[in-house]
Amino acid sequence: MSDNSFGKLFSFTSFGESHGPGIGCVGDGAPPRMALCEDMIQPYLDRRRPGQNRFVTQRQEEDRVEILSGVFEGQTTGTPIGLLIRNKDQRSKDYGDIARQFRPGHADYTYQKKYGIRDYRGGGRSSARETAVRVAAGAIADLFLKQALGTSYRVRGGVVQIGPHRINRDNLDWDNCDSNPFFCPDAEAAAAWEGYLDDVRKQGSSAGAILEILADGIPAGLGQPIYGKLDTELSAAMMSINAVKGVEIGSGFAAAAMDGREAGDEMRKGPAFLSNHAGGILGGISTGEQIVVRIAIKPTSSILTKRRSIDEDGNEVELLTKGRHDPCVGIRGVPVAEAMMAITLADQLMRHHAQCGILPTD
Amino acid sequence: MSDNSFGKLFSFTSFGESHGPGIGCVGDGAPPRMALCEDMIQPYLDRRRPGQNRFVTQRQEEDRVEILSGVFEGQTTGTPIGLLIRNKDQRSKDYGDIARQFRPGHADYTYQKKYGIRDYRGGGRSSARETAVRVAAGAIADLFLKQALGTSYRVRGGVVQIGPHRINRDNLDWDNCDSNPFFCPDAEAAAAWEGYLDDVRKQGSSAGAILEILADGIPAGLGQPIYGKLDTELSAAMMSINAVKGVEIGSGFAAAAMDGREAGDEMRKGPAFLSNHAGGILGGISTGEQIVVRIAIKPTSSILTKRRSIDEDGNEVELLTKGRHDPCVGIRGVPVAEAMMAITLADQLMRHHAQCGILPTD
Amino acid sequence: MSDNSFGKLFSFTSFGESHGPGIGCVGDGAPPRMALCEDMIQPYLDRRRPGQNRFVTQRQEEDRVEILSGVFEGQTTGTPIGLLIRNKDQRSKDYGDIARQFRPGHADYTYQKKYGIRDYRGGGRSSARETAVRVAAGAIADLFLKQALGTSYRVRGGVVQIGPHRINRDNLDWDNCDSNPFFCPDAEAAAAWEGYLDDVRKQGSSAGAILEILADGIPAGLGQPIYGKLDTELSAAMMSINAVKGVEIGSGFAAAAMDGREAGDEMRKGPAFLSNHAGGILGGISTGEQIVVRIAIKPTSSILTKRRSIDEDGNEVELLTKGRHDPCVGIRGVPVAEAMMAITLADQLMRHHAQCGILPTD
Amino acid sequence: MSDNSFGKLFSFTSFGESHGPGIGCVGDGAPPRMALCEDMIQPYLDRRRPGQNRFVTQRQEEDRVEILSGVFEGQTTGTPIGLLIRNKDQRSKDYGDIARQFRPGHADYTYQKKYGIRDYRGGGRSSARETAVRVAAGAIADLFLKQALGTSYRVRGGVVQIGPHRINRDNLDWDNCDSNPFFCPDAEAAAAWEGYLDDVRKQGSSAGAILEILADGIPAGLGQPIYGKLDTELSAAMMSINAVKGVEIGSGFAAAAMDGREAGDEMRKGPAFLSNHAGGILGGISTGEQIVVRIAIKPTSSILTKRRSIDEDGNEVELLTKGRHDPCVGIRGVPVAEAMMAITLADQLMRHHAQCGILPTD
Repeated sequence: MSDNSFGKLFSFTSFGESHGPGIGCVGDGAPPRMALCEDMIQPYLDRRRPGQNRFVTQRQEEDRVEILSGVFEGQTTGTPIGLLIRNKDQRSKDYGDIARQFRPGHADYTYQKKYGIRDYRGGGRSSARETAVRVAAGAIADLFLKQALGTSYRVRGGVVQIGPHRINRDNLDWDNCDSNPFFCPDAEAAAAWEGYLDDVRKQGSSAGAILEILADGIPAGLGQPIYGKLDTELSAAMMSINAVKGVEIGSGFAAAAMDGREAGDEMRKGPAFLSNHAGGILGGISTGEQIVVRIAIKPTSSILTKRRSIDEDGNEVELLTKGRHDPCVGIRGVPVAEAMMAITLADQLMRHHAQCGILPTD
Repeated sequence: MSDNSFGKLFSFTSFGESHGPGIGCVGDGAPPRMALCEDMIQPYLDRRRPGQNRFVTQRQEEDRVEILSGVFEGQTTGTPIGLLIRNKDQRSKDYGDIARQFRPGHADYTYQKKYGIRDYRGGGRSSARETAVRVAAGAIADLFLKQALGTSYRVRGGVVQIGPHRINRDNLDWDNCDSNPFFCPDAEAAAAWEGYLDDVRKQGSSAGAILEILADGIPAGLGQPIYGKLDTELSAAMMSINAVKGVEIGSGFAAAAMDGREAGDEMRKGPAFLSNHAGGILGGISTGEQIVVRIAIKPTSSILTKRRSIDEDGNEVELLTKGRHDPCVGIRGVPVAEAMMAITLADQLMRHHAQCGILPTD
Repeated sequence: MSDNSFGKLFSFTSFGESHGPGIGCVGDGAPPRMALCEDMIQPYLDRRRPGQNRFVTQRQEEDRVEILSGVFEGQTTGTPIGLLIRNKDQRSKDYGDIARQFRPGHADYTYQKKYGIRDYRGGGRSSARETAVRVAAGAIADLFLKQALGTSYRVRGGVVQIGPHRINRDNLDWDNCDSNPFFCPDAEAAAAWEGYLDDVRKQGSSAGAILEILADGIPAGLGQPIYGKLDTELSAAMMSINAVKGVEIGSGFAAAAMDGREAGDEMRKGPAFLSNHAGGILGGISTGEQIVVRIAIKPTSSILTKRRSIDEDGNEVELLTKGRHDPCVGIRGVPVAEAMMAITLADQLMRHHAQCGILPTD
Repeated sequence: MSDNSFGKLFSFTSFGESHGPGIGCVGDGAPPRMALCEDMIQPYLDRRRPGQNRFVTQRQEEDRVEILSGVFEGQTTGTPIGLLIRNKDQRSKDYGDIARQFRPGHADYTYQKKYGIRDYRGGGRSSARETAVRVAAGAIADLFLKQALGTSYRVRGGVVQIGPHRINRDNLDWDNCDSNPFFCPDAEAAAAWEGYLDDVRKQGSSAGAILEILADGIPAGLGQPIYGKLDTELSAAMMSINAVKGVEIGSGFAAAAMDGREAGDEMRKGPAFLSNHAGGILGGISTGEQIVVRIAIKPTSSILTKRRSIDEDGNEVELLTKGRHDPCVGIRGVPVAEAMMAITLADQLMRHHAQCGILPTD
């Protein structure tokens, strides 16, 4: 029951710091006899990998995953899957300046207050580097769901807002996400964002983002009321991602302003819903419609602009953060949020199956 | 590890349906030798109680809680605290019409799809009636936190938007919340909302709301990275509340549009933060500043307007929901959200204390 | 994740003290649409009920269970099942003498040391009275397993030793268990035990016992290696029962003295094992053979003989325990141990099904 | 909540197979700022290491542990501690014969039945090789307890019976355990066992054992009634070890035959118990006396004698197991059982502290 675990039946337990020997996890609960090898996980990691274009951190990491256990002759055995990603490009001296100073907006201060010690190199445990582990675990979840739910199943996501600039929903085409450096489903917006983000970086600043993550092909009935609801666990999954400050399902915050005669999605034969304000979840249980989650990610806190802060002794200082940072950490958040969605759904599918699929129905 | 439990060390396990014999919970983990009796829990329940004004359901429930265990001669013993609230005013015939029809926007459909059976009376387990249990458990958490953290500690919340109508932050006075039927911290807004909600009700409709929940006096250091983070668990706590569709911490979704030079809260000696965009949480750990959470609640789905739906056999129907429902379920959500905040904080305080308070520091 | 919960998927969370208003639990995880009502649980409770013959406590309790939730029109709904048994015959004055003294061999001292407070009436939370709750939860588990596994499934147990007197295995007939006051599978031994226990009681003493609990019709494959093994969880289940000091599986302690050429059960076609030293469990997973568990129960510590002890202030005292106590608490342990066996198996069946029954096999 | 995790607050999650790339775990919950490095863990592993004398398996493994995370500049940081031990001497061809045959008494059959697949090399996940991970995690627990409880604290154990040959309690000296290859506290018995075990091995057989594990310096009050009792969790900890078939606390099974006037340990001022039949635990809570646990370990099932079995297709076969096996797997069980004792105590200390040490006492 580690606080570094996620999931009840399909679970993973994560470890590792940004500049330690490596990061990794123990995935548990995957069914036996699923095809699995490093090459099946790697493509997921490659989507999240740093250094791929100028809008993400220039740290160079191969992010090669090694399977340490749980797989035999290309198949899962039902035993825990140890995964390890060695850290390579740990330019620790970049961080020397801030060993004793707290970056505004960063977890430096709170880790120090909580533990009285912190691995300050690259943010240590609080670094977004840990999210590579989630992506690796998410790959297994995604492969499992594909096998369990068939070809109608798909989890995907994209960036729908960077800084104050939203996509135009008329241009929405999720297939665009793989054609631009922002995982943006609106090709026009993506083009405009390039200039915006270049400016942000030149100014030594950073930008926030809003991501939208979708799941199709999810059957009705997933979700464990009332403290293991699907939306409860999805919001926990998303809020656990670095820099996330908000989560909404379906119409989300906009639902507060809706009229009750509009908000409840009507139904017709099929069964089919005539709208999806619910984002595919009612009473914490999936409706069979598309699952829609949006998350807000704050701007990267490590920036090249001088800011006021204090050091470990309480002295007032001014600091700016050198090093290689994402100008918009939200971009690389897309594969991470997709992974957390897949893991949550895999876990919920198993939990539902355990209780509701065990006795024959008439 | 019931899916009807919340909390790891300070936990409660909930049971009960809207129209069954009663609702209740088993609270566990409260320290021994805390003063506790029914009269100390009752005031919390009274704030959430139905039938108190025309803006909430007219169901009449005394909501008298009985302590079944865990208290001896007015003190907690450290053993589990059984709590029971008998249901009284279960006007079941009100619900006869919808026994086989699915209310749009309600959990009727998803419970039926998940379990193949549902207690349709008053929404059964999916009814907001269950939230009385949370308030009772939250009372114990709040009493514990008062004793552990002292007088600077306080959790409170209010409604900051009903339908499209927001409060004016210039009028903000949290002491107003107890002086109007909306738990509204802006007295002017509260006055305006009366007319608005009367209209909504006359139209046979309902309204959504946005709530803001605050915690003061929370020391820095609470939160278990990285899958038991304070914001992770707060968002799970809030999203588990009926009809909640969104959760944000601090600046939340607005943070996405902020410039990185503004978003990270600067610090000075004290230690003191010069702003609180973080909502009191960095890296999933409390900063010592005020904890700020906002949640979006959709309009009540049970309304007196005819809507299109289907029945259990898949036939298309039109239905409207008679019965006594909250025109804005968000209002009574305030004491519930406060309770979930207190429970989450109590649990996190214990988890922090267990690991970081066990060895002497130098 | 209450410490008063047992089970991961099929779970219950218990509350209640010997002389408080009542005892009960929240059962969670039972599949929906199982037939269930109070009358189906009551027979299990009646087997454990006090006051039924002179070899058990003379406390008179009806032990009528009330289902508070989770059942609708005679069927489980998949939501948590609240169960309540009111305490009736709480002759509290019996315990007045020992309010501040610690009975040797009893939990009085340790509860006081742990919590700094204890409900001394009847042993409070440490009383065997709580086991009624386990029997109620076990009834639901047993009914579930009957439906899931069919008629070959059966859990049953008996007393195979009281004090130093063992049964004769040549006389073994498990159907005898319901025909004598000791749940003894050897009718001759049962007859002899009557005189022995009468003597023990006359001397103001008490006797220990060894119980054997069997499960038939359990398919191979149940058990979650390697920290949720079937024998791991069975031993936890058994050791959590009051006064249990030892647990063994199959040949148990005798296996230590066996030759390796004998200990490993050989196999032939069928598949069939030629012996069952393993007690139906290998590597923590069921083999398909009969599950065999034995537990040692110490003599009741509340006896009518004067013994040396101390009081809360550390003063040396001599005390004897009046009140109505089981001369051999092991006897009424049989239905309790059966219940814990059934709950463990139900939980393991679900856990196995969740992981290994979710993908189609070829 | 992986089934490969142990512990609630001080926990570890294990992975790895006998002949895969490596074994390891994620330890979580250790307090920050404890001194820790590989060299502090290694001595614990060295005690369990194979190949050290002729009475244990001749497999040669260095068992060098690598700390992957959670330690910074020689101190724990409070974040999860990743531990990895690479497998070196995997002579896989030894196992080729039994790739499709089930060794009697081994987990081969049950893993195959459960998962439909198994890593047959060296027993895969069911191999005692995994216990190295427990010893590494146990080292951290032991170092923590030393710091938290001081010099009176000590966990140690030994073998008190091999095959039918018990130690003579008159010769008992626990310091002997480090002076013979059996961790035997009776030097005379150890000398006799040499010949016995040589015979057993020559006969191509194996021997069982009984181990006794002791903990001194444990304060009264540890244990979470009633499903997280100290003895409950100790018995789960012990029963999860390979080949263990029985667990007893204090007088254990012998308590069943005791007279009630003897069984309950009397007390005098001190407080001091006049005997310790309870084995240091009453009502699931530590008394302050020595914790005494005994476990029964069956003979190694992989032996050089031909035995009857079946293969994966159900054909009847005769097989004997080549390879390098412990003639008495119980011997190397000592450091493993010590580790599980330390982990359980560390976890219980934290759980107790969380609830009962958080509010000031008067």
